Amino acid sequence: MRLAVIGGVAAGLSAASRARRLDRSLEILVLEKGPTISYAACGLPYYIEGRVDSTRDLIVYTPEHFRRERNIEVRTGAEVAFIHHSRRELSLTGGERVRYDHLVIATGARPKRAGIEGADLPHVFTLHTLTDAVRLREFIRNERPRRAAVIGAGYIGIEAAEALRTQGLAVTLIESSESVLNRADRELTETLRRHLERSRIDLRLNMRISEIESGRAGDVPADLVVLSAGLMPNVEIAAEAGIQLGRTGAIEVSDRMETSLPGVYAAGDCAETTHLITGRPVYIPLGTTANKMGRIAGANAAGGRERFPGVVGTSIVRVCGLAVATTGLSAAEAKREGFDPVSARIEARDRAPYFWPAWTTVELVADRRTHRLLGGTIIGERDAAGRVNVIASALTSRMTIDDLENLDLAYAPPYAPVWDPLLVAAQQLHKLLD
Amino acid sequence: MRLAVIGGVAAGLSAASRARRLDRSLEILVLEKGPTISYAACGLPYYIEGRVDSTRDLIVYTPEHFRRERNIEVRTGAEVAFIHHSRRELSLTGGERVRYDHLVIATGARPKRAGIEGADLPHVFTLHTLTDAVRLREFIRNERPRRAAVIGAGYIGIEAAEALRTQGLAVTLIESSESVLNRADRELTETLRRHLERSRIDLRLNMRISEIESGRAGDVPADLVVLSAGLMPNVEIAAEAGIQLGRTGAIEVSDRMETSLPGVYAAGDCAETTHLITGRPVYIPLGTTANKMGRIAGANAAGGRERFPGVVGTSIVRVCGLAVATTGLSAAEAKREGFDPVSARIEARDRAPYFWPAWTTVELVADRRTHRLLGGTIIGERDAAGRVNVIASALTSRMTIDDLENLDLAYAPPYAPVWDPLLVAAQQLHKLLD
Repeated sequence: MRLAVIGGVAAGLSAASRARRLDRSLEILVLEKGPTISYAACGLPYYIEGRVDSTRDLIVYTPEHFRRERNIEVRTGAEVAFIHHSRRELSLTGGERVRYDHLVIATGARPKRAGIEGADLPHVFTLHTLTDAVRLREFIRNERPRRAAVIGAGYIGIEAAEALRTQGLAVTLIESSESVLNRADRELTETLRRHLERSRIDLRLNMRISEIESGRAGDVPADLVVLSAGLMPNVEIAAEAGIQLGRTGAIEVSDRMETSLPGVYAAGDCAETTHLITGRPVYIPLGTTANKMGRIAGANAAGGRERFPGVVGTSIVRVCGLAVATTGLSAAEAKREGFDPVSARIEARDRAPYFWPAWTTVELVADRRTHRLLGGTIIGERDAAGRVNVIASALTSRMTIDDLENLDLAYAPPYAPVWDPLLVAAQQLHKLLD
Repeated sequence: MRLAVIGGVAAGLSAASRARRLDRSLEILVLEKGPTISYAACGLPYYIEGRVDSTRDLIVYTPEHFRRERNIEVRTGAEVAFIHHSRRELSLTGGERVRYDHLVIATGARPKRAGIEGADLPHVFTLHTLTDAVRLREFIRNERPRRAAVIGAGYIGIEAAEALRTQGLAVTLIESSESVLNRADRELTETLRRHLERSRIDLRLNMRISEIESGRAGDVPADLVVLSAGLMPNVEIAAEAGIQLGRTGAIEVSDRMETSLPGVYAAGDCAETTHLITGRPVYIPLGTTANKMGRIAGANAAGGRERFPGVVGTSIVRVCGLAVATTGLSAAEAKREGFDPVSARIEARDRAPYFWPAWTTVELVADRRTHRLLGGTIIGERDAAGRVNVIASALTSRMTIDDLENLDLAYAPPYAPVWDPLLVAAQQLHKLLD
């Protein structure tokens, strides 16, 4: 029996590894169209920033590692052109044919061009693959650009802007919508705008760029342009094979990661998942989710019966030294989803007074009628991941704000104040709900 | 209508403040037997260490603040000798009588003497009140002791040992049981023993001290002895008034914080609470829990209908720079409670490789049959509070290890590795359960 996996980055390799762990005898073949596998895409901004010296430092495992340690065959430069599922066969672009019994599709995503003319000019970059990052760093070294425009203020755009600023460039961060980080939250956007300004990154909201020319992006002067206007799933070969796409445009999967073709699984940035607050399909391509989906797809392709319930939409990003973490829905998003949201935002010190406290901001959103927690935001210099993860856990188990208020959180003066900022925010929100 | 509150530290003042917020017209009187109210008892070790300069820095609010800002009358030096509930009257030790309509008992706890002879000698100290701490610091300054024995390796004992070590004393930390931190966990105890040794704090387990003399505690040479052998609840006046005590020896309360006398509430270190894993009453006196119980008692004494479900037993302590955080049950405790525990312990890096990762240890305990998560331990230099709080939240909502494995936790290279150590531990434990 042979398991073929299309794609050799996060989801694909997680699937292959998990399948191997559950079935020692399965033949496993991973086909990666690019030249490298298993690279830490999230590290690319830090390679541009200079913190990561070499792209080698971003490659977690080599094909040899998989062959030797896990008995998994990995081929790079192997692009699948067509899935003939009735024959259980893949055609590669070179013409070669590869048989399979089970299939995991982990074709990932690619940066949106956002309909911008001139996106292929030599001073325009995306930051999605190792090759992209190498090209961009070489351009900076050789061409010594002075002004950069970054198009799209999602987390990659923000990280890219900061990396370019660290490299000494003047940076304009351009966002077509009215909010950053793909989160409908005016207060968050305003906080970030002010914070970016302090590092002299100029955030322009509601600005749509339709054309890039040499020396400028729209009206913004730029010797260098980074396109970070979001990702679109690589679904073409799946769609051609008759696999159902969801309304998000990504591949529709069950909670077992199975596509509409029985026995064919999809995972990672090419697939949808379920948002646990709304119960609806969402497309939120992230490395962590890709790994989790990959594990489940691999387990089930190897005969397991595991399920991935979905995500609550947790993310964290460093913005010029400040951690900004969000999970669940913002108040505006909750309203759009039919809830009656009430939110409270507090600032509190994060330690006992004699342990150099810093300020941390906590915003919580809950539904007025049911008191169900719907989302949260943490902004602070430290502990933001820990606090947003508590909210994520509370969202996953559908806690109410009352439940959150009574959580038995750790306290000692070096680590937290006696009332954790999370509890202060929960109390504040409770007052508004009564 | 008058609400009387016996006790003016964490639970008592939380109760009074919450009652005031819900009822503007209630007359509220807080009776505190000691000379000060509202002090941060958890800060006492840091006053000994020298990090906190003055006891004034540990006093959060004064009686004047409560009078002026919250219209709450606070009397210090007012010790209640007897509760005459049939007459709704308190007798103070001076003979004065105080009427009440509603009553909250927040009499706190006192350090156990542990049946040790010589516990009243002038070189023997407890670390429970501001007065204790002032006496101890003066003794160190005036008598220049060189060798200290700390009796009891709970979190106060460990913090006291570290504070005395920082002050230059040679410290022996003596524990009568075979484990530290009141947690039946050999591996944790051994880890802490090694870590304390590095700071030259000598931990002696299974050593029962029956006598302290000048210059020694048992056979351990000591010019200074700190008694930190646990707390016992101050329940005498409640018991004499006919209020039911629980099997833990503390006051039995409902989840509304009501005692066996209707309309009389108890909260904080004098009362039991429910352990949410076992469903049984426990006595775990902690400032955070006292505050939460106090708020609920105050709300209900003012006519509200709120409930405090209980605790999962979360705690964190700094041990010579290392955070040690535990929640729920250890494997040994789970076994004793009738579960069939399986545990996994992993060490993992806590950041992406290019963000100066440190090692963090995660241990998770789950029930073999149901996969229900039962407890966890985090040991590390950072983020221990955040991670243990995620486990605490998962325990509160009765998650299985499978649920934990799928949690949508925040990831970005500056803050976490792509597989959070919590998820790595959950995966590891899952393997053992299959």
